[in-house]
Amino acid sequence: MISDSPAEARDRFRGGLRTPTAAWAPGYAQANLVALPRDYALDFMLFAQRNPKPCPLLDVTDAGSVVTSLAPGADLRTDLPAYRVWEHGECVAEPADVSGYWREDLMAFLIGCSFTFERALATAGVPVRHVEQGRNVPMFITGDQCRPAGIFGGPLVVSMRPIPADLVPVAVSVTARYPAVHGAPVHVGSPVDLGIADLSKPDFGDPVDCRDGDVPVFWACGVTPQVALASARPPFAITHAPGHMLITDVRDEAYAL
Amino acid sequence: MISDSPAEARDRFRGGLRTPTAAWAPGYAQANLVALPRDYALDFMLFAQRNPKPCPLLDVTDAGSVVTSLAPGADLRTDLPAYRVWEHGECVAEPADVSGYWREDLMAFLIGCSFTFERALATAGVPVRHVEQGRNVPMFITGDQCRPAGIFGGPLVVSMRPIPADLVPVAVSVTARYPAVHGAPVHVGSPVDLGIADLSKPDFGDPVDCRDGDVPVFWACGVTPQVALASARPPFAITHAPGHMLITDVRDEAYAL
Repeated sequence: MISDSPAEARDRFRGGLRTPTAAWAPGYAQANLVALPRDYALDFMLFAQRNPKPCPLLDVTDAGSVVTSLAPGADLRTDLPAYRVWEHGECVAEPADVSGYWREDLMAFLIGCSFTFERALATAGVPVRHVEQGRNVPMFITGDQCRPAGIFGGPLVVSMRPIPADLVPVAVSVTARYPAVHGAPVHVGSPVDLGIADLSKPDFGDPVDCRDGDVPVFWACGVTPQVALASARPPFAITHAPGHMLITDVRDEAYAL
Repeated sequence: MISDSPAEARDRFRGGLRTPTAAWAPGYAQANLVALPRDYALDFMLFAQRNPKPCPLLDVTDAGSVVTSLAPGADLRTDLPAYRVWEHGECVAEPADVSGYWREDLMAFLIGCSFTFERALATAGVPVRHVEQGRNVPMFITGDQCRPAGIFGGPLVVSMRPIPADLVPVAVSVTARYPAVHGAPVHVGSPVDLGIADLSKPDFGDPVDCRDGDVPVFWACGVTPQVALASARPPFAITHAPGHMLITDVRDEAYAL
């Protein structure tokens, strides 16, 4: 049974429940977590600043703090349902609690998540195919490069949602209202233009079936900073486990323009 | 005679012309400059991230670079018409060229400027009183505190524009489209709510005359980071001189949602 309240959800995750957070606390924004030693924080902030569509920063904590303004009652070490611990670009553990791994020099970056705009799409009557089909959204590494910053760089990763052609303008308008959660699409139509050879073979997530009349629409994706992180190979990092996000106390609508 | 082209304007400033940039290269965004040693850059980026309305970052350069993506042909050391050089929070020089002051460890922060939304207001038929009256916009230190970050903190500074009551909704809507240049107002009406005692005594800029039926409307102001800088007293910094901005190659409309 999922919780409708962010605080109750976090309390259950803190108690050990390990589950993807999709559909939890509907109406409240969820966030990606990247925690890095302070020595790498400036490079990462620059990377986010230069690539705001894939890396919209919602909050950045001070070194030594485990609290975010997005969820003042939450402890970032315990209140996500699952984490990944990284050493030199390799995932070395996937614990449900990182209290034993956390370091005093870590700064946490909370990054916007597309769950927020998917709810807005559904509310606007735009079908979200991967949700209909009970799958994860398909994600693709593109041929477009991010603007690099220090040790961080690499390709733009996009998520793809098939949208009925007559609803593409609605999908663009609705998501454009949410720049803090990836905003408007980066591309509509031909995958080849983005260097994507085969929509049935995503680099992350699941393939999704298009219906007749659907057009593939591509949004900048929060996996981009994770790919940059794996490539930059900083000595240490902690992230959320895919799909196991921080549930914030911030309403989705707070990120709408 | 002002220049309509950003490159031509910068060329003349590089040649030694010292003049405020208001009305230069109309239609192109102008930017505030704050250049800081790399050791202070993370604190400043955090301050901007936590206070995006007064400190909207348009670009941040790498240490050692004097080039911004906002104006690829420009040299940040020479192409603004006037600068301020700061040591421990004191302005020690106001040169027209900072080539002799620039250091290899400086990172330049380019911050959005309200000239962009003032043009949008005028285009939408909203009178801009201080321009009508040939004055600088009045700015006030408020009782609201910014979210601090490292050595940076301090009060929110706002600019005030008297707006005819029936045009307040237009002024809000138009400026809300430009979050990269301070966005929607932070307050409409009663100055006392912001801790402002007397609208005729601005802390910066000139007093402006309200007409009958005007309501004071307050926007977050780019002077906020300068006040934070003066208070934090880092050992060294370079900024633009007030009103003497970087003219970018980016169209105002590029910052509209």
